[in-house]
Amino acid sequence: MGEMIYKRVALIGLGLIAGSMGLAMREAGLAGEIVGHARSARTRKVALERGLCDRVCGTAAEAVEGADLVVLCVPVGAMGEVAAEIGPHLAPGATVSDVGSVKRAVIEAVAPHLPDTVHFVPAHPMAGTEHSGPEAGFAELFQNRWCLITPEGADPKAVDRLTRLWEGMGANVDALEVGHHDLVCAVTSHAPHLIAYTMVGVADDLRRLSEGEVVKYSAAGFRDFTRIAASDPVMWRDVFLNNKEATLEILGRFTEELFALQRAIRTGDGDMLLAYFTRTRALRRGIIEAGQDTAAPDFGRGAPQAPTGKDVDA
Amino acid sequence: MGEMIYKRVALIGLGLIAGSMGLAMREAGLAGEIVGHARSARTRKVALERGLCDRVCGTAAEAVEGADLVVLCVPVGAMGEVAAEIGPHLAPGATVSDVGSVKRAVIEAVAPHLPDTVHFVPAHPMAGTEHSGPEAGFAELFQNRWCLITPEGADPKAVDRLTRLWEGMGANVDALEVGHHDLVCAVTSHAPHLIAYTMVGVADDLRRLSEGEVVKYSAAGFRDFTRIAASDPVMWRDVFLNNKEATLEILGRFTEELFALQRAIRTGDGDMLLAYFTRTRALRRGIIEAGQDTAAPDFGRGAPQAPTGKDVDA
Repeated sequence: MGEMIYKRVALIGLGLIAGSMGLAMREAGLAGEIVGHARSARTRKVALERGLCDRVCGTAAEAVEGADLVVLCVPVGAMGEVAAEIGPHLAPGATVSDVGSVKRAVIEAVAPHLPDTVHFVPAHPMAGTEHSGPEAGFAELFQNRWCLITPEGADPKAVDRLTRLWEGMGANVDALEVGHHDLVCAVTSHAPHLIAYTMVGVADDLRRLSEGEVVKYSAAGFRDFTRIAASDPVMWRDVFLNNKEATLEILGRFTEELFALQRAIRTGDGDMLLAYFTRTRALRRGIIEAGQDTAAPDFGRGAPQAPTGKDVDA
Repeated sequence: MGEMIYKRVALIGLGLIAGSMGLAMREAGLAGEIVGHARSARTRKVALERGLCDRVCGTAAEAVEGADLVVLCVPVGAMGEVAAEIGPHLAPGATVSDVGSVKRAVIEAVAPHLPDTVHFVPAHPMAGTEHSGPEAGFAELFQNRWCLITPEGADPKAVDRLTRLWEGMGANVDALEVGHHDLVCAVTSHAPHLIAYTMVGVADDLRRLSEGEVVKYSAAGFRDFTRIAASDPVMWRDVFLNNKEATLEILGRFTEELFALQRAIRTGDGDMLLAYFTRTRALRRGIIEAGQDTAAPDFGRGAPQAPTGKDVDA
């Protein structure tokens, strides 16, 4: 057991991330009590059954009472509303954090509702699966993954305390400037997701192929896109709407590069294609060396570490 | 052991696919003798050491002598040259096949060099990993994967015999019309690969991010792209140059859809985004139900079935 870092943690929203946090904190003994709230009664029931938290509350305002850490785990678009609700009920000295994939928009939505007596330390655990909901969480989700914190002048002691919590759950923690965070994520996560959604949409639309054919013959590349494109639709709608500028910039560059490659295909410029594909292969090796993936060939049926994997409707 | 289907099989090219075929045929007792040829002496040496074939020959012409099945396992762009070399040395009644990801261009390059006394049955096993070379193959590669055959009027007995070989190696076999094959693959494989290469190239280019940052924070979507974009550069150059028309058509549609989604982001049309992402999620469920992937969440460190996985330089 690790050291207890917070006496009472309130998780607002009980989906994949909050559920994994609850299980990870419990396993490592990081929190005295874990209180949860979700709008749906069914979600609250499943959360209690799975032990994601010790008790649940019917409102977010109740859940945050007396908590020394409050973590907002709702879709980015819902953060402002939740902050407005809990603001008056926060304990003085409490830390408020979140797990949103976008930081500038969340800070703008949340900060105005928080009293001066609390510490706001935005965070973003870069971990997830294509599953969502209270059934999807598991304690190991954050192991060896990055959690990015954008402290922006928050009390260093509060930042340090939250950092130790994330490290206790297995994550590596980095501090980033807000705008840089949003750009990094546009490149490594948001643009790739939109592109995957798009490609799956194209396949689904093509009348000359039956859905059966697309499904049957998906092993050779497309399948990875469908996995990414199966992520929670509400979460991703909110991410794109709230990281608009950086996402559109990266997509603009992407389109430009794609046109250059299309032109090379059309004109038969094999040298250009070969040089491009050789360069991208090198980046892959860097990722393997950094321990963010393995060199084991993946033909799509792996992932033995994950104890649960029920596909949940949006 | 299964029944022996060919007395002598000649594998021309000894990379991931040929190596996996050799190991799978041996394991199931499908071939009396397996003869191999690769241009590189090192590749031939590794192939013998790993038992991918029983003996190797210094030229393709020697390797095909007396073989009742010859399988061309070289990049699509090299098929014509190899066919010209082996044409005069093929045994009457032999079957010639290939494993190219593109079929129309391969047929046009290969067929003119083959004597009337042999059966040409083009095939395309839809299986692979991001690794390549003689170290990369393993006997289970084709298990539960599709092998597409485009018989185009070949002798039904020769088609049936090759079908039984692929089934003996664990694959499911379907016959497709050549043009339809090339379109199906443009959607499920070729366009996704080009898109992945492009996104990785964009990340690599972006001066405001260090390569270290891209690598460190790659877990959230981008990592899957880098895996796809680590595939053999020569193979993929040839695929794009030889399935130009279908690939460019699908990329055109992709760009159109991407622009529509970009526009929805720019104008804040959350309903459009939510509807799109919900639709793509449904297709994913079809793929899981068809057994081409599992519902287990994949956070990139799975794939225990693969016995070997050395990353090979291009």
